[in-house]
Amino acid sequence: MSEEISQRIEQLIRNEDELDAEVYAEVSEDLEPDQIALLLESLPREARADCWAQVPVEQRVDVLVEMRAEARATLLKEFDSKSLDQLISDLDAETLIELAETLPDSVVDIALARMDEQQRQHYERSAQYGEDAIGRYVDHDLLILPQNSRVRDAERLLRREVPEYTQHLWLVDRTGRYRGAVETNALFGQPDHLSLVELMHEEMEPITASLSLREATEAFEHGESLARPVLDDNGLLLGRMTQGLALELLHEHYEAQLMASAGLDEDEDLFAPVMRSSRRRATWLGINLLTAFLASWAIGLFEGTLQQVVALAVLMPVVASMGGIAGSQTLTLIIRGLALGQITAANMMPLLRKELSVGGLNGVLWAIVIGFVAAWWFSSPGIGIVISLAIVVNISVAALSGVLIPVLLQKLKIDPALSGSVILTTVTDVVGFVAFLGLGSLFLL
Amino acid sequence: MSEEISQRIEQLIRNEDELDAEVYAEVSEDLEPDQIALLLESLPREARADCWAQVPVEQRVDVLVEMRAEARATLLKEFDSKSLDQLISDLDAETLIELAETLPDSVVDIALARMDEQQRQHYERSAQYGEDAIGRYVDHDLLILPQNSRVRDAERLLRREVPEYTQHLWLVDRTGRYRGAVETNALFGQPDHLSLVELMHEEMEPITASLSLREATEAFEHGESLARPVLDDNGLLLGRMTQGLALELLHEHYEAQLMASAGLDEDEDLFAPVMRSSRRRATWLGINLLTAFLASWAIGLFEGTLQQVVALAVLMPVVASMGGIAGSQTLTLIIRGLALGQITAANMMPLLRKELSVGGLNGVLWAIVIGFVAAWWFSSPGIGIVISLAIVVNISVAALSGVLIPVLLQKLKIDPALSGSVILTTVTDVVGFVAFLGLGSLFLL
Repeated sequence: MSEEISQRIEQLIRNEDELDAEVYAEVSEDLEPDQIALLLESLPREARADCWAQVPVEQRVDVLVEMRAEARATLLKEFDSKSLDQLISDLDAETLIELAETLPDSVVDIALARMDEQQRQHYERSAQYGEDAIGRYVDHDLLILPQNSRVRDAERLLRREVPEYTQHLWLVDRTGRYRGAVETNALFGQPDHLSLVELMHEEMEPITASLSLREATEAFEHGESLARPVLDDNGLLLGRMTQGLALELLHEHYEAQLMASAGLDEDEDLFAPVMRSSRRRATWLGINLLTAFLASWAIGLFEGTLQQVVALAVLMPVVASMGGIAGSQTLTLIIRGLALGQITAANMMPLLRKELSVGGLNGVLWAIVIGFVAAWWFSSPGIGIVISLAIVVNISVAALSGVLIPVLLQKLKIDPALSGSVILTTVTDVVGFVAFLGLGSLFLL
Repeated sequence: MSEEISQRIEQLIRNEDELDAEVYAEVSEDLEPDQIALLLESLPREARADCWAQVPVEQRVDVLVEMRAEARATLLKEFDSKSLDQLISDLDAETLIELAETLPDSVVDIALARMDEQQRQHYERSAQYGEDAIGRYVDHDLLILPQNSRVRDAERLLRREVPEYTQHLWLVDRTGRYRGAVETNALFGQPDHLSLVELMHEEMEPITASLSLREATEAFEHGESLARPVLDDNGLLLGRMTQGLALELLHEHYEAQLMASAGLDEDEDLFAPVMRSSRRRATWLGINLLTAFLASWAIGLFEGTLQQVVALAVLMPVVASMGGIAGSQTLTLIIRGLALGQITAANMMPLLRKELSVGGLNGVLWAIVIGFVAAWWFSSPGIGIVISLAIVVNISVAALSGVLIPVLLQKLKIDPALSGSVILTTVTDVVGFVAFLGLGSLFLL
């Protein structure tokens, strides 16, 4: 699939100079809106605008919804008022929710004014929820029936047009409170007069609208449910969350984590303007500069020693980097465990013991190897002994930090996947340098 | 959800000494098999065995299937022949496929011998496909009809028991070749004699059984399909892939990537035995040791300079680390782009230009800051100038490497998410040290 997209991009850029409706139609043939969005995002900004001009009007809303916010915002900024007007002339609640953050408030108001009453109500109920609450993203295409309906009522409803990807009928009481769901398949062969309540599916546990996206997605990772009712605080049926939405959100969650681990925003545009991109990345570089200066300061404590034994300066990176790598192995294992909820106060001690043993064993093993190499390289058994000891110390501290740092961050409500690695390597750098140069000062001077 | 699991784990460990059927029943109430699997994996090995003894016999197979291979293998090793016999007495094809890698071949043979003819056939057809092919994991619970069936035939079939999560009827020709699928919902209100071919769902594009898990999952990331037919090379309907399976595989894919980035196996057990765990991690530490020695060797080229200007030794980590961070930002952006198929030969040049500009701008900015700090710290304008130049050089090289390394790795069919970061930091370390110490040798001696 991703290879297919690559081919389309190549084809598009090859024909960039003569890009017209015909070339575009050929390139975009059979592509889904999310694939066209990917295609647009892959183009440098000017080419992107040219290509956008070729996207058929009727596809534009769908494509915009699928784009990452930064790329979408840039496109929207170029819209004249007529195109904008056209764009928002016929939006449903879910689409407007998606686009709202990148549209001026005044435009959102116009779009709302043009919606039919029911869609506006859907919009207003969803928009109460924040960007990280599942209530904001629910799907409103539900077949809803009163709880006292019978099989014949359901069949009458289904004989009219059925929304695609419908697997359930939703039962509510007179005030709109959720009562249960019936699989459409359960209707086959049932007598007309049977009450739908008899056919209710037992495993349709509702989700609270205020639940975070991550938690709502987790609810789909067990079992096989295709959709779940999403209720507001009063038990009113707000809409449904589907397995398809869970798949999309899971993807976005991991992409955001990947980007965040390098201090990038999940909406970062591949071709963001240089100034904007530089400004955003500068912050992360600044934070890391502070940690680097911390390491330098630790080295600076031993200037005198370094002057006398320059071999220490040469070997410093080995000590720091072995600690960093060993620590990041433990850290990664713990981050996974925390994400799965597997790590608690109760199993911390045995876990620490195990990681310290693994670290200790590997520390001793590699200390011996590195000790011999260093002693041979600088023809100095003393250097060999000093680096061996420093490696054992640093790898043990790394194992300890690899367990404790993410657990502590989690306690402080900071995502360990985001900042765990920066903090860990700062610790292993500082401890590594101090241990190595400190031991060097003791034994080699 | 994950918090819920944490609470159960705490409760279980608190009551570990008096763990009996009653305590276990309380702890595991309402948990799905995958959650019980998580619970077991969170326990140190002895506690895990004690807890396993309490898992009701009828749940054991489901729990084992959900466990990660390493943890499962340890449990299975403790089985006596009677329990093993019980376990495999009634497996279906999909379950046996999941368990096969952790069972001795002789046991797999016995399980096969006990299966009914149809399940055995399913097993044999799936088992032909390797661990990374989707054909291995297809779901066989299909309602299959001959292509010339009518609505009344479908309804007759559906009136008997319908497998849960059925949304389609699958049409095949006389030799078992896939012809199309009909949504069960499409049957409502249709005349009895209508041919099912008239109702076929257009977007049910088949997946080839030999497709990799990642590619098969991608097919579900566009659009909303709930299931797709999986065909063998001859077009025979092997089974279906569902959206639920896509969700599970996506999760595993990302977890595997996270673990691989630290040189860990996705099946790594939280409480793996110390010896085994140490042995596995030692390899990754060894690889990183080589890269660390490479950096040391680069520093060693400038021993004379370091002896005369010890400030260079103190500041070395700043140069290396700023390059590493800047490079990893570019690397991460490119890795995402490659995963999405957005990066091709055609947009490489503008991308390189943009990343070099961003790197250059941030390089100059931070070079000035770091230059002033260093000049003030060591009361030496010369040091300030040297480190500024080295930072600009290293951040620019980092931007270049951040684009080129992952693209090159992808070309060589090596996953850039796995080894990109190790190679990148080796480059930025070596380039950083050589630039800084080299410039120092030129200007400060």
